[in-house]
Amino acid sequence: MSQGSVGIVKPKMMQFDEPIELQGRARIDSYQLAYESYGELNAERSNAILVCHALNASHHVAGIYADQTENVGWWDNLIGPGKPVDTERFFVLGVNNLGGCHGSTGPSSIDPRTGKQWGGDFPVVTVEDWVEVQARLASRLGIDQFAAVVGGSLGGMQALQWTIDQPERVRNALVIAAAPKLSAQNIAFNEVARTAITSDPEFHGGNYYEHDVVPRRGLRIARMIGHITYLSDDAMDAKFGRNLREDVLKFNFDIDFQIESYLRYQGDKFADTFDANTYLRITKALDYFDPAASYGGDLTAAMKNSKSDYLVVSFTSDWRFSPERSRELVKAMVENRLNVSYAEIEAPHGHDAFLMNDAIYHNLIRAYLERVST
Amino acid sequence: MSQGSVGIVKPKMMQFDEPIELQGRARIDSYQLAYESYGELNAERSNAILVCHALNASHHVAGIYADQTENVGWWDNLIGPGKPVDTERFFVLGVNNLGGCHGSTGPSSIDPRTGKQWGGDFPVVTVEDWVEVQARLASRLGIDQFAAVVGGSLGGMQALQWTIDQPERVRNALVIAAAPKLSAQNIAFNEVARTAITSDPEFHGGNYYEHDVVPRRGLRIARMIGHITYLSDDAMDAKFGRNLREDVLKFNFDIDFQIESYLRYQGDKFADTFDANTYLRITKALDYFDPAASYGGDLTAAMKNSKSDYLVVSFTSDWRFSPERSRELVKAMVENRLNVSYAEIEAPHGHDAFLMNDAIYHNLIRAYLERVST
Repeated sequence: MSQGSVGIVKPKMMQFDEPIELQGRARIDSYQLAYESYGELNAERSNAILVCHALNASHHVAGIYADQTENVGWWDNLIGPGKPVDTERFFVLGVNNLGGCHGSTGPSSIDPRTGKQWGGDFPVVTVEDWVEVQARLASRLGIDQFAAVVGGSLGGMQALQWTIDQPERVRNALVIAAAPKLSAQNIAFNEVARTAITSDPEFHGGNYYEHDVVPRRGLRIARMIGHITYLSDDAMDAKFGRNLREDVLKFNFDIDFQIESYLRYQGDKFADTFDANTYLRITKALDYFDPAASYGGDLTAAMKNSKSDYLVVSFTSDWRFSPERSRELVKAMVENRLNVSYAEIEAPHGHDAFLMNDAIYHNLIRAYLERVST
Repeated sequence: MSQGSVGIVKPKMMQFDEPIELQGRARIDSYQLAYESYGELNAERSNAILVCHALNASHHVAGIYADQTENVGWWDNLIGPGKPVDTERFFVLGVNNLGGCHGSTGPSSIDPRTGKQWGGDFPVVTVEDWVEVQARLASRLGIDQFAAVVGGSLGGMQALQWTIDQPERVRNALVIAAAPKLSAQNIAFNEVARTAITSDPEFHGGNYYEHDVVPRRGLRIARMIGHITYLSDDAMDAKFGRNLREDVLKFNFDIDFQIESYLRYQGDKFADTFDANTYLRITKALDYFDPAASYGGDLTAAMKNSKSDYLVVSFTSDWRFSPERSRELVKAMVENRLNVSYAEIEAPHGHDAFLMNDAIYHNLIRAYLERVST
């Protein structure tokens, strides 16, 4: 763990008994949210930063758990005392999204109407739904307005949606490695991942819990595909190239190349820890994200009530959500005469760059947040 | 079918009883090759062109079958009387590669040693092996030297390998949308496809024939992944964008977007017609292709005995084998003072562009072959 850690943290749980009507018209009568917080909320309750998570992360954003010291929060390099997101100034909040598999109500939770796990009946939850749920949590915690909402990738999409749906409740949005909507190719990758899961014979229409199995093969493949899109071609070549795991080609279907070994390892690890039903739903939330859709595709119109200031960040080698996609966001912000800083970071790592400890990137976030009043 | 078709064609079969020792040290005692030819071999036997196929194609390169008039050869737009590869001048030969599933000996053939289908025991066959086998077929047909060997993608790799392994037997090589070797990302996509197939419960270690099943789910996913890499992001956006199949989002896991429908359709069609064992082996042949490997990575050294003239063609939007990869080939050719023409075609279609009827591309091939003496 790096210096300036928030140290040992404990996840908390908040119960909500007010029903939520989801964008897809399904209704969840009651639910709980797992969350963590670091730093202290000031007396004015004006120093809160919400960190939104991407596809496979959670509310465990920084620090470690007392009983799992190797389980470091996924954005620990960015968040902590003296770090770019400085927990000595800010109260930082991480929430496991509704539909998740790390403590918040999701497909593996008990559906109170049936007394059984939701499974395949758990509804599709969208970015808009998440913003609504996060806003409810903020209200419970007494936070009327966030100093900033921050996120990368799907997390960045949530930050953007906050400024559209809750313009009075967010002063700054840090939208990192995101896009205003998925391209056909982005959707295509998600669809292959979903097909791998739903066509796994152990999927059982999403009700695999009651069969005491997991659609492991499908999840592995989904994760392997994901990893290809997270890394740039160059980064993969630099890291693995055509290096063999052993010295010779095997002329069979065991592992020849190190990249194969890496993908299989990542696939296996993921299949051990992530819930397939959650994966399916999060990819749908990505596919559906398109705030301009109800404005005839006009993102500028969609953002007409936004009043937040923005930091938009992209990475040169990100081919999942390329800098071009971030510039579409910037254009809509500029056209609405909103304050926006935009940085295109020269980085070789691909989409994963938003999670990396890159000095230029981190200094940029530090400098931006230093100007944010609390 | 377009004008200038070779018309109705018939596949032929050639039996070989001389064993072949494969690069991977396995041995096949006897085998047959399915092939087709169009045009007439001249008296000097000097006007033959070999067309090598890529991942999922076959010896059926041009024309139609009398009993399957919808089954048009895969490069029919390029090859025929008066077409760029003019069958009024050239004798054009297409061969189903060893290990294939369209008539040549492959995993679904009977292994004479056991009397059962080879299945999972069929060896991995490489690009070098294919060149050796194609050369044997040429000898049988009385062709000492090809006027040209032509191929796109994996077919282009075979054309290149011909000029390295059989420099006396090929006067021109047309190497289209190819690369001197796969990148880590290229291998990664292949590995995900293979994992989808081998982890399908109906794969049975490759011996699914005897269980009377097919690893259909795996093949579908393999093909869906393939299609993403064949098309450019822009081409996919132009063709499908975020268009919905029906008018509204469904908030379930049926098909929402047209791109999903397209991929599922392509996956299903492929799973109905292609053999999974062949797919596995062809992706391995791709991964293993690296003529420079035995020269310490020096492609120029690997090509030191080549004497062919070359036409190298790449397509601007091809992200599977980008123009940069073709330029690596050109560099090695130039460094060996070989005659090489190189064209980077402005085309939006991605890797699939090599199969398209693009006027600039086709006129280029026409002009090149018009200069080839017969």
